[in-house]
Amino acid sequence: MEPLSYGQYSLVYNAFSFVLAAMGAATIFLFISRSQVASQYRTAVTLSGIVTVVALYHYFRIFNSWTEAYSVLNNVVTVTGRPFNDAYRYMDWLVTVPLLVTELVLVMRLPGKVGPSKATKLAVLGLSMIPFLIIQYELFVGLKSAIALQPESSRGMVSTARYITVVTWFFYPIVFILPMIGLTGAGAVVGVQVGYSIADVLAKAAFGIFIYNIAVAKTQGDSVMAVSKL
Amino acid sequence: MEPLSYGQYSLVYNAFSFVLAAMGAATIFLFISRSQVASQYRTAVTLSGIVTVVALYHYFRIFNSWTEAYSVLNNVVTVTGRPFNDAYRYMDWLVTVPLLVTELVLVMRLPGKVGPSKATKLAVLGLSMIPFLIIQYELFVGLKSAIALQPESSRGMVSTARYITVVTWFFYPIVFILPMIGLTGAGAVVGVQVGYSIADVLAKAAFGIFIYNIAVAKTQGDSVMAVSKL
Repeated sequence: MEPLSYGQYSLVYNAFSFVLAAMGAATIFLFISRSQVASQYRTAVTLSGIVTVVALYHYFRIFNSWTEAYSVLNNVVTVTGRPFNDAYRYMDWLVTVPLLVTELVLVMRLPGKVGPSKATKLAVLGLSMIPFLIIQYELFVGLKSAIALQPESSRGMVSTARYITVVTWFFYPIVFILPMIGLTGAGAVVGVQVGYSIADVLAKAAFGIFIYNIAVAKTQGDSVMAVSKL
Repeated sequence: MEPLSYGQYSLVYNAFSFVLAAMGAATIFLFISRSQVASQYRTAVTLSGIVTVVALYHYFRIFNSWTEAYSVLNNVVTVTGRPFNDAYRYMDWLVTVPLLVTELVLVMRLPGKVGPSKATKLAVLGLSMIPFLIIQYELFVGLKSAIALQPESSRGMVSTARYITVVTWFFYPIVFILPMIGLTGAGAVVGVQVGYSIADVLAKAAFGIFIYNIAVAKTQGDSVMAVSKL
């Protein structure tokens, strides 16, 4: 591990702690509030909560690995020799990337067999990080035509969710290449860890709450429609 | 224990952590979502969640046993002399194998007394690992005739569940014999642990979610039938 200043060590430490709080808060909110959306949108909200609780687990591990890799005494940070395991992030992606894609597709409730097949296609692509641009293309262009099928009241929100996904997901490769474009030593360690922390809060916790808001809007739209049919 | 490189140690460590995340995610999903299937299918979904939570417990034990058996300092892995207890896997099978078989039979809802007696037969066979091929035969051939009794809408999915069971269960004996067919030393330790981890995620977490999907499809099919009878 790189030697760090106390300020650098603390910045990463506090970023991890903030992510734990954000993921925990989002998880509790999503699990408690899922009963407030119509049953056809509940799985999307449930999966949003699963994504944040899985991220919560991995950030606990990352946080503990960070505090074990360094020891702090009198504002001096020393390396303990114990490994800082960053691989938790990759394990996390294996679980959460397919779920994030499925969330978005489920809350859109595409007609007939389009939804499941689109979800499967995107989830399988999502599992392999290499065709990242194909996923982004599928999400951005492929789902664009599906926006037109949304009820008018939630069309804008679904469209926004699609943008949020694409923009927040582009954070990850940007953070990943930080050390390759000149960021070195302690700066690279801090930049990568804080960068991933921000990306995770946006792509998982904030995105999950947004999915919930779409589900609420659609639930209200459905009950308006049901009343107008009476 | 075999001496391992840091890469080998980490591969197994990360595989165990991944299984913990996957089992935890599946457990929460199944317990939260069981209310969304008709009551006659809920026990199948409940059992799916029991299987993944029992696996979660055992993987916590396995993970802790792994980290206690080795110590890592400055990327060098040394054996501590404390045992790595792999017997948790067998304890896990004692609980989960009969439940997995019961899940599949319950979600099929075979008519009359065929279901319970078939479940008992398969569960008792499942408890003894020796007649493994008999279980596989019973699952594959014995349950084939039961597929025809499924409502058309879920016949394909139930058939797929039967294939998933047989294919994923064959992973276990394959992993088991890896050390007997020439894999030795550190490679055998890593191969067996990573192999079982993959098999467990497929046979328990992924299988459980698939059982839930069948239950949802059947619930929707039942309500369509109920409406058409009005």
